[in-house]
Amino acid sequence: MSSISNNEIKRIRSLQQKKFRDESGLFVVEGEKMVAEALASAFSVESVYRKEEIGEEAMKKISSLSSPSPVLAVVRKPSDIAPDSVAELDRLIGKRGFYIGLDSIRDPGNLGTIIRIADWFGADAVFASADTVDIFNPKTVQATMGAIFRVKFHYVSLPMLSERILNASGKVYGTFLDGRNIYSRELETGDNSPVMVVTGNESEGISDQVGKLVSDRLFIPPFPSDRQGSESLNAAVATTITLAEFRRRIIKA
Amino acid sequence: MSSISNNEIKRIRSLQQKKFRDESGLFVVEGEKMVAEALASAFSVESVYRKEEIGEEAMKKISSLSSPSPVLAVVRKPSDIAPDSVAELDRLIGKRGFYIGLDSIRDPGNLGTIIRIADWFGADAVFASADTVDIFNPKTVQATMGAIFRVKFHYVSLPMLSERILNASGKVYGTFLDGRNIYSRELETGDNSPVMVVTGNESEGISDQVGKLVSDRLFIPPFPSDRQGSESLNAAVATTITLAEFRRRIIKA
Repeated sequence: MSSISNNEIKRIRSLQQKKFRDESGLFVVEGEKMVAEALASAFSVESVYRKEEIGEEAMKKISSLSSPSPVLAVVRKPSDIAPDSVAELDRLIGKRGFYIGLDSIRDPGNLGTIIRIADWFGADAVFASADTVDIFNPKTVQATMGAIFRVKFHYVSLPMLSERILNASGKVYGTFLDGRNIYSRELETGDNSPVMVVTGNESEGISDQVGKLVSDRLFIPPFPSDRQGSESLNAAVATTITLAEFRRRIIKA
Repeated sequence: MSSISNNEIKRIRSLQQKKFRDESGLFVVEGEKMVAEALASAFSVESVYRKEEIGEEAMKKISSLSSPSPVLAVVRKPSDIAPDSVAELDRLIGKRGFYIGLDSIRDPGNLGTIIRIADWFGADAVFASADTVDIFNPKTVQATMGAIFRVKFHYVSLPMLSERILNASGKVYGTFLDGRNIYSRELETGDNSPVMVVTGNESEGISDQVGKLVSDRLFIPPFPSDRQGSESLNAAVATTITLAEFRRRIIKA
């Protein structure tokens, strides 16, 4: 039954490791819905493997999931994932736009969730620091629930990008424990200038390097606002609240 | 070095399974911070195990984590986790309060994240349907980051509780794709009557049984609000946006 060679199985399995994804420029998506979205997207799908064609045993071998789905595709990464000149950064941010900056997000599931949120809130692009986890990590890809095929995503130097945004009369927002209450601040929405909301690392928050380029330091108040003992919010949750508030201002207006 | 018997190791390991947690009334927490919070809380801590006392090998055996932390505690579950009379439900909701209802949340990590959010937003209690995942699941406990020791939590019949809230002139809120824009609705904050915000199951949303008792159907608009192709939000993210909006109304006011 199996119409897949051992070498092919080995090659697909190797894509679970970043090294081989980088070398080949390929990554894996799994599941009917995800594969359908890949095929309908601008991404180039190299090959599709179905359980009824290659057999259950082969499917188990090439899948990264504990219960393999009926279909898996090998997909080519977009070529513009890591822009390599200032001119290219300037072109990407343009004269206006609403962007998300990710400063060293380490958890693959968190990154996937944030991509999904970025899709929901219609971010024009997501810019991640080079030390952010790989977006083509299988866990991240699956956690995006298909948003990976809709959201523009680039690895950049976040300090350099922040400078370009400020240079274009834009704003860089970040949340800090000593920031100012997001609910009472005026917020630029990105309609007239480029605006980026930066999300910090899960445990360290926003790095000093990026922090000193943040033009508006925001704070998400707990409730009641003087309460003690609460952990800070996780990266995906803080991003959610911040983006919802930016978008609410426009929806409400 | 080991000052822990094989029987004890077996007993602690068994607490990774719900069956044994239910039988013994005990659960496990791991990590310096979590154990410190347990000790400082109203929860009764049965025993504490430290790596330097029982040895690294024993620690590996009793831990549910891939890299065991230096300390683990066995903690007694609170006795009021499952109220069993209408009078008890009425007492728990009282005359006012801001509550979260969880309708069949299945993912342990999601539940932990929601408990952490409930803590951040100062919910007076979280009420979960009986088929919601066990809050004492090790993954859930760890994902709460200690919020499990601060947030009141009960397993209930959510339809019955919803009836009691409506009976007390309260409101039951839920988010639905055909609900009304949360940003333009008047929202009761729980200061004058009991208010519950219900979060639905990760894939099915709010059940029909609970849905028909929701007094106010809300909708979280994507952006732009007419855009197509976006997945719905995950349970923790939808809960975050909804709770943030309820709390913003008070903070802003």
